[in-house]
Amino acid sequence: MSRSEKLKEQVIEQPNTLKIEPPKSPHHHIQPFIHLSHTANPIKNNVLLILNQKITIDLISFFQKTDISICADGGANRLYEYFNNDEQLRAQYIPDYIVGDFDSLRPEVRSYYESKGSRVIHQAEQYSNDFMKCIYCIQLHYYLRDEDKTWPEDINEENGIAQLWESLPGDKHKEVKIYVLNAVGGRFDQSIQSINQLYILNESTPNLSLFFITASDVIFLLKRGKNYVTYDDRFLFSKSGFPSCGMLPLSNKPIILSSYGLKYDVREWTSKMMGYVSSSNSISGEDGFIVECSDDIVMNIEIDV
Amino acid sequence: MSRSEKLKEQVIEQPNTLKIEPPKSPHHHIQPFIHLSHTANPIKNNVLLILNQKITIDLISFFQKTDISICADGGANRLYEYFNNDEQLRAQYIPDYIVGDFDSLRPEVRSYYESKGSRVIHQAEQYSNDFMKCIYCIQLHYYLRDEDKTWPEDINEENGIAQLWESLPGDKHKEVKIYVLNAVGGRFDQSIQSINQLYILNESTPNLSLFFITASDVIFLLKRGKNYVTYDDRFLFSKSGFPSCGMLPLSNKPIILSSYGLKYDVREWTSKMMGYVSSSNSISGEDGFIVECSDDIVMNIEIDV
Repeated sequence: MSRSEKLKEQVIEQPNTLKIEPPKSPHHHIQPFIHLSHTANPIKNNVLLILNQKITIDLISFFQKTDISICADGGANRLYEYFNNDEQLRAQYIPDYIVGDFDSLRPEVRSYYESKGSRVIHQAEQYSNDFMKCIYCIQLHYYLRDEDKTWPEDINEENGIAQLWESLPGDKHKEVKIYVLNAVGGRFDQSIQSINQLYILNESTPNLSLFFITASDVIFLLKRGKNYVTYDDRFLFSKSGFPSCGMLPLSNKPIILSSYGLKYDVREWTSKMMGYVSSSNSISGEDGFIVECSDDIVMNIEIDV
Repeated sequence: MSRSEKLKEQVIEQPNTLKIEPPKSPHHHIQPFIHLSHTANPIKNNVLLILNQKITIDLISFFQKTDISICADGGANRLYEYFNNDEQLRAQYIPDYIVGDFDSLRPEVRSYYESKGSRVIHQAEQYSNDFMKCIYCIQLHYYLRDEDKTWPEDINEENGIAQLWESLPGDKHKEVKIYVLNAVGGRFDQSIQSINQLYILNESTPNLSLFFITASDVIFLLKRGKNYVTYDDRFLFSKSGFPSCGMLPLSNKPIILSSYGLKYDVREWTSKMMGYVSSSNSISGEDGFIVECSDDIVMNIEIDV
C-alpha cells in the first residue's frame, strides 16, 4: 500500500453534521466556549488573564463571564489603551491583580489601577516569566479565598508569591479555568513559549484548564486518554456552523489519534512534526466530538463570530 | 548543582552590542533582511508568495525586491483587497502566478488578474495543500527560465505541476529565496502546518530558503551545523536597535545550541518543548551573530520598523 493510500485509509471523510453520543467510559470533559454561552453571570473559578500585546478581541464579554481578572505586567497598559478615551468605560473594568517584573508597566497606568483598587504585586525574578508569576497569583487567590484568609502584608519582591505558594501544605489545588488573552498570535517566540507552558502546566498542575484566546481561535490541550469536547451548538462560535480546527503535536513526540465528530476523522493515526499534522480540519459534531490521544496534544478551534 | 544554577551557567548575559567576527569554518550564511536593504532593484531568484489571510504588512516593498510573485488560491483575493479602491495602484502589482484548488479564489478576482496577464494554474488535488502546489510552481518557473523553455500548453488540472516537476531529470534544483506572507500569525493550525512544512521542505529541497513574514517578525530555519546570520545593521529592522528573538525546537527532538551574539548567549544548551525554550531573547551582534545547532531549529526575529 502506498503512503497516500495508507493515509486515506486512516482518514474518514464525515458528513458536515453528526450527532456524537457522550462517551460511556471515563474521559476529560472540555468546554472551550462557556464564555460565549448565553448567561450574563460571572462563572465561578473562571479567570481572565491579559498578557502584553494589543487587544484585538471583545474584552468586555470576558470580564462579564469571569470572576477575577489579572494583568501580566504591560498587559495592564493594553487594558488601559483598549478603552481609548472612554474614561467611564475604563473605570468599569478594573483588574483584580497586576503582577510582573514591571519592565513594561507604565507608571501612570500603575497609579490609575492602584487608585481604583487593583492589587499590584511586583516580582523581580528573571528566571520565570510574567505569565508564570500570574499563574502563582491565581492559585494563591483561590486558596486564600477558600481558606477565608487575606493576602500577607509583605510579599518578597523577588519571588514572594512563588515562595508563598510552594510553602503551602496539603490539598491547595483548586479547579480553575483561565482564559488567556494575547498568549498566542503575536511574536512567534512568545506564542511558542506559551504553548510550551501549556504543556508544562498540565503536567505540574492539571487542575488548571487554560484556554488561549486569539483573534482567530481558541487553543487548549487535549489530554492523554479520552476527551469529550462540548458546546451548546456550533453557531455559538462559528458563523458558517463549520468551524475549522487542528490538532498540533508540539510536545517532542509522536501522538496516536482517533477522533469521532470531525470532518476528517482519524483512526489510530500517528501525528508528529515533520510528519502528519491535522490542520484545516473542521468540526462535524453538532454539540460535541471525541478525541482519544496517546499523549497530550494541542487543539485549536476557529472562532469567527 | 540545582536546575536553576545549571541553567544560569549555560546562559551568558552579553552587552547590548557586540561585534561578532564571521566564522572561519564552513557555515550556512543567512540574510533574513535583504528585502529591507536600501536597494531599489528586484533581487534575482527572490520570490514573493502570498497565502490566504488578510495582509497587514507593507506589501509594496516585497514586490519591489522580488523578481516573481505568486498567490496561493485565495491569497489573490487578499492581494486584490489590499488596494481597496485604488484601481491604479492595484494594476501595478500583478502576481505572475495564481495556483491552488481554487476553493477560495473569487471569480471576479481570477478574471481581473487573468486579464492583466497572471498565469492561473488550477490544481485540484486534495492530498497536498495550496502552499505546496505553489512551491512546485516556483521551482518549475526557475527551471524553465534557466533552460529557456516555456510552460507546457496543457497542465493536468489534478496535480500536473507536481507530476511535471517530479518527471524532470538531472540537476533541476535552483537556489531560491521565498518570502511567504500570511503563513504564520492567523489560525494556529495553519501557523503550525507552515512550520511543519518549513522543516520538511528543508529536508527535501534545501536549495529553497523560506522566510515567513508576519506582522511582528520574520521566521526561518537555522540549519544543522553553524549558521551565520547577517544584516547591514540592526536599525534596518528594529526601531530600538535591540530586536527580540527566539529559537524554537519544533521538530520532535531536543536540540543542542551554542550562540555568539545574542543578549542571552547559550553554550551547549539543550532546548526542547516541555523543557527549555529560548524566547524573549534579543540580538546583540551589530551586523551578525552565530548559532551552532545539533539539528534544524526555527528562529524568529522581531521586525518593528
